[in-house]
Amino acid sequence: MGKWVYGFGDGKAEGRADMRELLGGKGANLAEMSNLGLPVPPGFTISTEVCTHFYENGQKFPDDLEGQVEEALKRIEQSVGAGFGSRSNPLLVSVRSGARASMPGMMDTVLNLGLNDDTVEGLATQAGDRRFAFDSYRRFIQMYSDVVLGVDHSLFEEVIENRKLEQGAYLDTDFDAGDWQEMVGQFKQIVEAETGSPFPQDVRAQLWGAIGAVFKSWMTPRAVTYRRLNDIPESWGTAVNVQAMVFGNMGDDSATGVAFTRNPSTGERRLYGEYLVNAQGEDVVAGIRTPQHLTIAGKQEHGSDLPAMEEVMPEVFQQLVEIQARLEAHYRDMQDIEFTVQKGRLWMLQTRSGKRTATAALKMAVDMVEEGLIDREAAVGRVDPMSLDQLLHPTLDPDAPRTLLGRGLPASPGAVSGQVVFNADDAERMAADGKDVILVRVETSPEDIHGMHAARGILTTRGGMTSHAAVVARGMGRACVSGAGELRVDYKTETLSGGGHTVGKGELITLDGSTGEVMLGEVPTRQPNVSGDFAKLMEWADQIRRLGIRTNAETPRDAETARKFGAEGIGLCRTEHMFFDADRIISVREMIMAEDAEGRRRPLSKLLPVQRQDFVELFRIMAGLPVTIRLLDPPLHEFLPHSDEEMREVATVSGKSLEAVRHRVIQLREANPMLGHRGCRLGISYPEIYEMQARAIFEAAAEVGRETGNPVIPEIMIPLVATARELELLKEVVDRIGREVQEANNVKIDYLVGTMIELPRAALRAAEIARFAEFFSFGTNDLTQTTFGISRDDAGSFLETYRQRGILEKDPFVSIDVDGVGELVSIGSERGRRTRPDLKVGICGEHGGDPASIRFCHEAGLDYVSCSPYRVPIARLAAAQAALGGERSGG
Amino acid sequence: MGKWVYGFGDGKAEGRADMRELLGGKGANLAEMSNLGLPVPPGFTISTEVCTHFYENGQKFPDDLEGQVEEALKRIEQSVGAGFGSRSNPLLVSVRSGARASMPGMMDTVLNLGLNDDTVEGLATQAGDRRFAFDSYRRFIQMYSDVVLGVDHSLFEEVIENRKLEQGAYLDTDFDAGDWQEMVGQFKQIVEAETGSPFPQDVRAQLWGAIGAVFKSWMTPRAVTYRRLNDIPESWGTAVNVQAMVFGNMGDDSATGVAFTRNPSTGERRLYGEYLVNAQGEDVVAGIRTPQHLTIAGKQEHGSDLPAMEEVMPEVFQQLVEIQARLEAHYRDMQDIEFTVQKGRLWMLQTRSGKRTATAALKMAVDMVEEGLIDREAAVGRVDPMSLDQLLHPTLDPDAPRTLLGRGLPASPGAVSGQVVFNADDAERMAADGKDVILVRVETSPEDIHGMHAARGILTTRGGMTSHAAVVARGMGRACVSGAGELRVDYKTETLSGGGHTVGKGELITLDGSTGEVMLGEVPTRQPNVSGDFAKLMEWADQIRRLGIRTNAETPRDAETARKFGAEGIGLCRTEHMFFDADRIISVREMIMAEDAEGRRRPLSKLLPVQRQDFVELFRIMAGLPVTIRLLDPPLHEFLPHSDEEMREVATVSGKSLEAVRHRVIQLREANPMLGHRGCRLGISYPEIYEMQARAIFEAAAEVGRETGNPVIPEIMIPLVATARELELLKEVVDRIGREVQEANNVKIDYLVGTMIELPRAALRAAEIARFAEFFSFGTNDLTQTTFGISRDDAGSFLETYRQRGILEKDPFVSIDVDGVGELVSIGSERGRRTRPDLKVGICGEHGGDPASIRFCHEAGLDYVSCSPYRVPIARLAAAQAALGGERSGG
Repeated sequence: MGKWVYGFGDGKAEGRADMRELLGGKGANLAEMSNLGLPVPPGFTISTEVCTHFYENGQKFPDDLEGQVEEALKRIEQSVGAGFGSRSNPLLVSVRSGARASMPGMMDTVLNLGLNDDTVEGLATQAGDRRFAFDSYRRFIQMYSDVVLGVDHSLFEEVIENRKLEQGAYLDTDFDAGDWQEMVGQFKQIVEAETGSPFPQDVRAQLWGAIGAVFKSWMTPRAVTYRRLNDIPESWGTAVNVQAMVFGNMGDDSATGVAFTRNPSTGERRLYGEYLVNAQGEDVVAGIRTPQHLTIAGKQEHGSDLPAMEEVMPEVFQQLVEIQARLEAHYRDMQDIEFTVQKGRLWMLQTRSGKRTATAALKMAVDMVEEGLIDREAAVGRVDPMSLDQLLHPTLDPDAPRTLLGRGLPASPGAVSGQVVFNADDAERMAADGKDVILVRVETSPEDIHGMHAARGILTTRGGMTSHAAVVARGMGRACVSGAGELRVDYKTETLSGGGHTVGKGELITLDGSTGEVMLGEVPTRQPNVSGDFAKLMEWADQIRRLGIRTNAETPRDAETARKFGAEGIGLCRTEHMFFDADRIISVREMIMAEDAEGRRRPLSKLLPVQRQDFVELFRIMAGLPVTIRLLDPPLHEFLPHSDEEMREVATVSGKSLEAVRHRVIQLREANPMLGHRGCRLGISYPEIYEMQARAIFEAAAEVGRETGNPVIPEIMIPLVATARELELLKEVVDRIGREVQEANNVKIDYLVGTMIELPRAALRAAEIARFAEFFSFGTNDLTQTTFGISRDDAGSFLETYRQRGILEKDPFVSIDVDGVGELVSIGSERGRRTRPDLKVGICGEHGGDPASIRFCHEAGLDYVSCSPYRVPIARLAAAQAALGGERSGG
Repeated sequence: MGKWVYGFGDGKAEGRADMRELLGGKGANLAEMSNLGLPVPPGFTISTEVCTHFYENGQKFPDDLEGQVEEALKRIEQSVGAGFGSRSNPLLVSVRSGARASMPGMMDTVLNLGLNDDTVEGLATQAGDRRFAFDSYRRFIQMYSDVVLGVDHSLFEEVIENRKLEQGAYLDTDFDAGDWQEMVGQFKQIVEAETGSPFPQDVRAQLWGAIGAVFKSWMTPRAVTYRRLNDIPESWGTAVNVQAMVFGNMGDDSATGVAFTRNPSTGERRLYGEYLVNAQGEDVVAGIRTPQHLTIAGKQEHGSDLPAMEEVMPEVFQQLVEIQARLEAHYRDMQDIEFTVQKGRLWMLQTRSGKRTATAALKMAVDMVEEGLIDREAAVGRVDPMSLDQLLHPTLDPDAPRTLLGRGLPASPGAVSGQVVFNADDAERMAADGKDVILVRVETSPEDIHGMHAARGILTTRGGMTSHAAVVARGMGRACVSGAGELRVDYKTETLSGGGHTVGKGELITLDGSTGEVMLGEVPTRQPNVSGDFAKLMEWADQIRRLGIRTNAETPRDAETARKFGAEGIGLCRTEHMFFDADRIISVREMIMAEDAEGRRRPLSKLLPVQRQDFVELFRIMAGLPVTIRLLDPPLHEFLPHSDEEMREVATVSGKSLEAVRHRVIQLREANPMLGHRGCRLGISYPEIYEMQARAIFEAAAEVGRETGNPVIPEIMIPLVATARELELLKEVVDRIGREVQEANNVKIDYLVGTMIELPRAALRAAEIARFAEFFSFGTNDLTQTTFGISRDDAGSFLETYRQRGILEKDPFVSIDVDGVGELVSIGSERGRRTRPDLKVGICGEHGGDPASIRFCHEAGLDYVSCSPYRVPIARLAAAQAALGGERSGG
């Protein structure tokens, strides 16, 4: 019927590297190496179409498969000059699975297939080593019985262990040929007892057993789950690779090793790798012997005494050097290579793109462009945007000693040391004294913002990756470890304990926000080295991307950081963060205590100049760029105090009784604040608040415009709109203030009024809403909360179970839920633009810095994404990759 | 160009009743009465097309309008035999607006137009009454100046008041002709001072001023707002009616009156109405004189001494009797008629469908079918479904004296008396002793359910129409007054105070849940009289409707009530309500305290038999019908105690420390419980809970099936699904238990597994979800909360402002938001059925009993609605009206 089997070896092959779909990754690369004329042990690949056929036909193989396998086998026999099942000169093969994408959970490998009671003797003769032959045979029985026959591997290990006890032996190497031969007998008895049949002596039965086992492993529960979680279609199927065995353990002229064509940690262009003389691949992995360096340079660099391959096998080494250079030039990427030397002859077993650190990825990508190996697009496509995070924050000196107090979640990257404080006020005070502080809390709330801002790092013992502490810290670019449940915080004694240590206020600790580690004392850190390579890659990315990149920022420091990182404006300035400062909160509270609009106007008039000053500073930094300012969003109760002392202060300022303050606090309490009296609902209830904010914005814009001649374009954003009418009413308020300020200052201010689309209803009614909105910014944090009906603050108790059970692949607050939330974003953007074709559409919130979400935003036709300052470079790169299309490679 | 003016009078007209769009309601009915040959003062209607032309052409009239008006005016002059502006025999006219739908906020009426300094003399001569003429003139100046010229009407009232003070007069009737004549002079001075022009003496200028004022009033802000709130298109426009004046105040052979063709309170088929001799319409309204009855029967029935029209003007009365009979037969509905008798001659001024009570509407509809006047469809279409609510609950005896304590919101209808208790336990205890109790709380929570159930009525001092108390009370059919902020509850002293009274525990109060009144002591009530008419109309409705009607019920009592009211199954049985009973909650709490699945199984095994018994009772009542059971939905913390005493009890039962219990209470607390660890998320985290519930359901179904031979069809419903995978996993659990129970009992149980669609994401992903769901039930309460991002519990603080500002016409928790939430329902239903064409689709929650929402459900193609037991008849009628299409009339 069809062609099911593709041979390779002897400098030719029926497949190619671009036939991954048919041959799997491993098979395609083996074919490619053969075509390049490299020394690849001959073999063949049974294609993925056989897997498909197998499952579509009640687990039966195609009729003509057997014939094709026999022919391919014959070609191997001819090439190697050995016979499969031959007693005198047996051919042994390996059988390996090989899907398009590497897939844990599937049958991996059976080695030494073709051994039986007869052929083992032939192997002994050929190798001149009886012990080697029987050791190989017993390994084969163990491996085959485990993965093909389903016999519990511990039964075999028990036999070996018992024998060691009997003979007083410690290591496998203490056994001789006779020992292994006897154990082979015992192993075969075990197999017969467990399976009811003797261990197969027919080498073809062995082969078909192994082939069947590979195909069956495609549908094991673990494999099915892995595919579902990684979006790998079941229809892809796996291929099977059958290949002549070569042995690196046939004496001192044999060896096995791995090589990288460039240094995977630094990216340096130099052969890098390790090998072992007279060993098999698994010995390198087992770590019983110390691997040796390939090159003299490597050996010297690491101060190793063991001879380099360059010294021991200079000719084979030269051959390897040539081959690796050819492979890298051919694949145009750093290669991770496996090889074996059998009796002085080099064999290539595998080549693939090598994993690398972020630094290395960056350097290689830039170097390869300069070497002319790849173009800029390829370079941009090859660096994992998320890996940049490592480069932008300080990291712990890997060699420095450390004492671990405990571990939490790596909530916001960066390694920082500082003195422990237990409340936001102390943090602010001590930071003002020039001290580096770490704010330690059970959990944080909006009232802690000033302290979080003052601190270098934040540690909480409760809350997940999307808790308040984590989100705010990421937004501010502060290092954060959250949910460190092993640690205990005692506010009364002001102590932090864990790992048998107790740390008091003012004592030093170190956080690593990239790993979640909390350490005693100060651990030395390394500052980020944002080298020329980084800048170069970013520039290339900017030339490719279509999406604009803005930042979420409300402080001058954040705005400056973001501009440094290349932000093209502010996409979200949250005005409420400006309300929490110690000198302002009291006016905010006075405003909340007032009984009517008149009463609210007095404290608001005190807030006007400070809020205006906030904007003046921000606008100076962002001169000439758009700045999207969200008017007050959180429910008012977030601003109210909880302690008696603070309530008394509010009572004094507002001229009310303590009882009245307490009553107001209770009155404003909400069952579900996320869905409560917040966002534009505040603007509707208390238009004077939005009036004050609009005035502050316009007056600041006028002032900075006069001063710099390069005014920002304020984009005033009304939050939490559910109906067009809300926006209509509030736009009237903003426009009226706009007219007043322009007339009073005799200036023309260019500004836009728009809205956040963060409720499902707003997305659905976008056509109406766009009548009053000049821009949309999708607030995908809240849109995710409402679309899923999941409170970010409460999700910790079940999201982990959800991931384990395969319900959610990723945290939808980290990476946008394309199917649900994404559809609403598409609907909103489409309907909005139908009403107003030039509607500016962007996204703000956590997703704006997530590469997968950025790809979605690009595909959905959005105009820009906005993310926290430290995510700006990530977003620039991810946006470029999205523009290039296809999956990102890299990493 | 076109025809703009339509004349009527003298037994003929150019318009008809079905020309409302062109002539407005009033104009069309005046034309229709003319065509019927009834005595209508002649006049003409300027059509709504003129209004449209007016606004499309910069507020200009069509060129040929003036000519057509002149001609029409000439016809009136000929008919009446008087001249417009004639000094000797002046024609006076009224000018009235008349839109398709009656519209407050528009110019209403100018009477006596045509009077000036000359014609007033003619009128005096004609009427033989100089005082009448000048009184009419000054009234005209006042009215015209106010509505046409925009002069502040208080200026005129001031003149009259000052004159009264000067002359020591008290009433207008104390003035004579000379007084009015002098005041006319003063009025004209005021107009000239205010407008800069003299009061128009040219009667044609008067007429065009009034016509223009009507058209301009179409666009006043009040009219615009009213139209937006009532979905009246601006393009409809208004018509203008100009009609010859007739006077009921020209002596004792003149009169004015109103008549209903049937009794609007009882529906009895008998002429009903009132009149006044020598009076104008406004005198009836002003209430200065006591109106007299039309008929002798009416007079006797009300024990009036004043003579009936039947006695005073027998001939005119006979004419009226004939006319009213003709009008009812013609319009096929009870008519509300206005008439005037001028010097012994009857004139018909208006006829329209009359407003009526629910009882009357029901009786008239059924009677008219039996009289052959209308068909059953018309009868069903004519009763306002919501009005049935009045008929299904006890009402206060209207004649009984009452002492008001205060007022709250009419949260759940019904009038009840009972002894006051201040907590749920007392309510349960006293009810068990056979006492009628009213549960009084500041607000209620899920822990109060047993007390709410035991009480006859519920009173809260906080919370809105959709507060917990209100929603639960409506669901249970308990009377409820919520948010009675005037009343004060003191739990410590167990007292309720308001209106100067204080009521202690055990003392009697009366609630009227239909008006929101709270009264001292016991006020006698009347039991609902669900007569044969009611049953008949319901039967007709059932023949017409397509939607199935189910009920939301979890107790036998509710299930019985609902079946009595015609429910065709249970659409929502909330299992958690069964968990709050005093003898169960402790096992629930023990379960929550357990640390692992094993620990939870022990208390769950104690809950199994009681939960099974719940279902057995319910299934017996619902034998043969489908019963949709929602598995546990609320977050676990709702079940945990708050008092130390209760916590200690939980500690004892679960073998934990009090500290551990307290810790668990804190641990489970959520920031936004609505979006928290609830619904199917509990089923995923703790499958053993759903296992127990599924087992209880299946075992009960098996038992009742055996017992009755008529098993229910359990429809097991998984709540709060956001992804298909959640349902897939939990359906596996349910099906597994189903298999076990069927095997163990050796029975076949027909059942379905389905889900609530109550999250936007579920609606969007319905195609996938339907792969595992045999039915969908739209949980529009939660869907509204998430789609709007509004917490029902917290909406009270801004929803009222939202209604006032025209942002929301109706509370979206009461009547479904068709544009937003409705689109998600349509999307969900459509996508679900694309996957599974026989998917059963319904709606449960508050909206299931709201007529407008039911119409939406019908149009969206849903299979059924489910509502609280007392709403079942409303839903049956509303569903029939939806099937009839068009707007409901009635009411």
